[in-house]
Amino acid sequence: MSLYIMIMAGGKGERLWPLSNPGRPKQLIGFDGRGSLVRQTLERLHGFAPFEKIWVMTGIEIANQVAIGLPELPGKNIIAEPFGRNTAPCIAFAASLVARQDKDGIMAVFPSDHMIADTGAFRRGLDVAIGFLEKNPHHLLTLGIVPSHPETGYGYIEPGEIVWHDPGDHSGLKVQRVQRFIEKPDIASAKTYVDKGCLWNAGMFVWRVDAILKAFERDMPVMHKTLMDAWQRYSDPNEVLEYFYSHTKAISVDYAIMEKADNAVVIPVDIGWNDIGSWDALGKVLEADSNNNAFNGDVVFEDSGNNVVWAGGKRVVLLGMEDTVVVEGDDAILVCPRSRAQEVSGIAKKMNAAETKGVGRFKIP
Amino acid sequence: MSLYIMIMAGGKGERLWPLSNPGRPKQLIGFDGRGSLVRQTLERLHGFAPFEKIWVMTGIEIANQVAIGLPELPGKNIIAEPFGRNTAPCIAFAASLVARQDKDGIMAVFPSDHMIADTGAFRRGLDVAIGFLEKNPHHLLTLGIVPSHPETGYGYIEPGEIVWHDPGDHSGLKVQRVQRFIEKPDIASAKTYVDKGCLWNAGMFVWRVDAILKAFERDMPVMHKTLMDAWQRYSDPNEVLEYFYSHTKAISVDYAIMEKADNAVVIPVDIGWNDIGSWDALGKVLEADSNNNAFNGDVVFEDSGNNVVWAGGKRVVLLGMEDTVVVEGDDAILVCPRSRAQEVSGIAKKMNAAETKGVGRFKIP
Repeated sequence: MSLYIMIMAGGKGERLWPLSNPGRPKQLIGFDGRGSLVRQTLERLHGFAPFEKIWVMTGIEIANQVAIGLPELPGKNIIAEPFGRNTAPCIAFAASLVARQDKDGIMAVFPSDHMIADTGAFRRGLDVAIGFLEKNPHHLLTLGIVPSHPETGYGYIEPGEIVWHDPGDHSGLKVQRVQRFIEKPDIASAKTYVDKGCLWNAGMFVWRVDAILKAFERDMPVMHKTLMDAWQRYSDPNEVLEYFYSHTKAISVDYAIMEKADNAVVIPVDIGWNDIGSWDALGKVLEADSNNNAFNGDVVFEDSGNNVVWAGGKRVVLLGMEDTVVVEGDDAILVCPRSRAQEVSGIAKKMNAAETKGVGRFKIP
Repeated sequence: MSLYIMIMAGGKGERLWPLSNPGRPKQLIGFDGRGSLVRQTLERLHGFAPFEKIWVMTGIEIANQVAIGLPELPGKNIIAEPFGRNTAPCIAFAASLVARQDKDGIMAVFPSDHMIADTGAFRRGLDVAIGFLEKNPHHLLTLGIVPSHPETGYGYIEPGEIVWHDPGDHSGLKVQRVQRFIEKPDIASAKTYVDKGCLWNAGMFVWRVDAILKAFERDMPVMHKTLMDAWQRYSDPNEVLEYFYSHTKAISVDYAIMEKADNAVVIPVDIGWNDIGSWDALGKVLEADSNNNAFNGDVVFEDSGNNVVWAGGKRVVLLGMEDTVVVEGDDAILVCPRSRAQEVSGIAKKMNAAETKGVGRFKIP
């Protein structure tokens, strides 16, 4: 069986605003000198599939930039979504695309805007996933992250009984039944989940295309029918995508499929994962000084600690500051407490809306 | 008797760094849309003296800029100091320059980097000063600011008995003997001084040139002799200045003359004075929103209050910030608590030194 890889690169660049923005979302930015996150995602998968079996689904606004950054991939494998529809339609379309080539193919789905420090551990996890699915073709498999701390920003996966463990594999990896998917919890619940051995849901999936399409047919019959109709109406995948996205609703694959599935399994992996979902999260992976000031660029800290600072072209100087985020983007400068970094995407939305509406320079109502 | 005006414009641009810098010190910046502070200083004095009797003493680095900004003044009246020597040598030289034209002339000395909101009140104070000196030619007069709050950043003047009060003047202004000059106090002492009716020392002086030169001869005999020697050696005032500054020490006129003088008098004035000596002080005169966020430029405040923000070219967004200074300069961005704004000049010194020494981008030792 062949592996097909689908890299999802549809982020809108709100969480790391003003460094990121709709024209330069997180997946197009590099944070550690090793190239953009989408490029790192591709390189991390080296050898698992030939380039013609790797697709990137991304927004039409940045499709060209993505293509330029991934010259190995055939141009037609960069699929431009006319607009965002969350992960379920994206995955359904991708599965149908693969199925036209290879109904028995295994498809792996990865977000493009996360950091994974331990590539070896990641690849071992993927190896085990593929090995498992070759013998258990009906399961929907996800890689679950062994948590480092109770985190309220992620969904959790509660693993159940062990269903597979290759005695010849020295990685210690195992496949477990998924007991349930859990939405983003409060901090008390997060602590309980971590204590119970629950895993972070990182949106990484591996399954056979026939299995995931069957799941759509069963649990999202309208969406599935719309997709099948689209393939009957059009032969050009771009036209299929346009029609399908125009006639289906936005919903996550977790909510649409995984939470309902009785055949979901998970491999717990410990791979140095960080979703860089906020400036606070980025602060945990950026270079830091001895006072835990995480920074990029020309930054001077005077009597300051625990800050996250991204300097663009200018020197940034902090005097007497603690626990603060300072970001110089191309067009804007953001200053906020680290504890409020989760609210930055809301600010980014307002800024974009304000620019569209021509709202004035001061105090967005 | 004629009035001669000496505007001192020698500041180094450290207190409002990174907006100000050695090439663009505070006196060359406008903060309220009414032109640079040195320009406002000149305009505030309109009519008190013809332009050929108004001099500006400034640093050689910015003398051209000053001249361009004050085209009314004859070019030779912009005097470029080869290096800074504090106020006493500057004033001694200026007085000697005036004395060569008019030994009986009255000379008024003003800093160029303060804001004065009430021009009328300022001009009435100067009128009274001139009137007083015409009849009392031996006194050294200063305008003292009626304080609005206990402030530790300024020196104080303790006024004594009233020595002159024009019964025909409806301004209510009076001339009082100076009991003593007081150096920058701690906060407890500052409160006592304000309660006792002490005044802020704003460095504004009016005196006859023969009186101030006599004071130098008495209290700073070496400096005075050096100055007289210089005028004997050279006829070109620039050469005199170069020689004099090279051979005399840096000292303030307060310390060199005023604190020792037994003929010092003060006119208490209430003129809306602000020395803009820090970002915190500037915050008190900048436009502010209903949450007391003082700002300039394209600034957005979200759930933020009591901040001082200067936006350069980029939009500056504050989320959840309080009592913080954020400044976008041409080359650097500063973030610090308002309470530590006094330390900015120290940072500016370090930054300039670091640039000279080529110290790296991060953590000045």
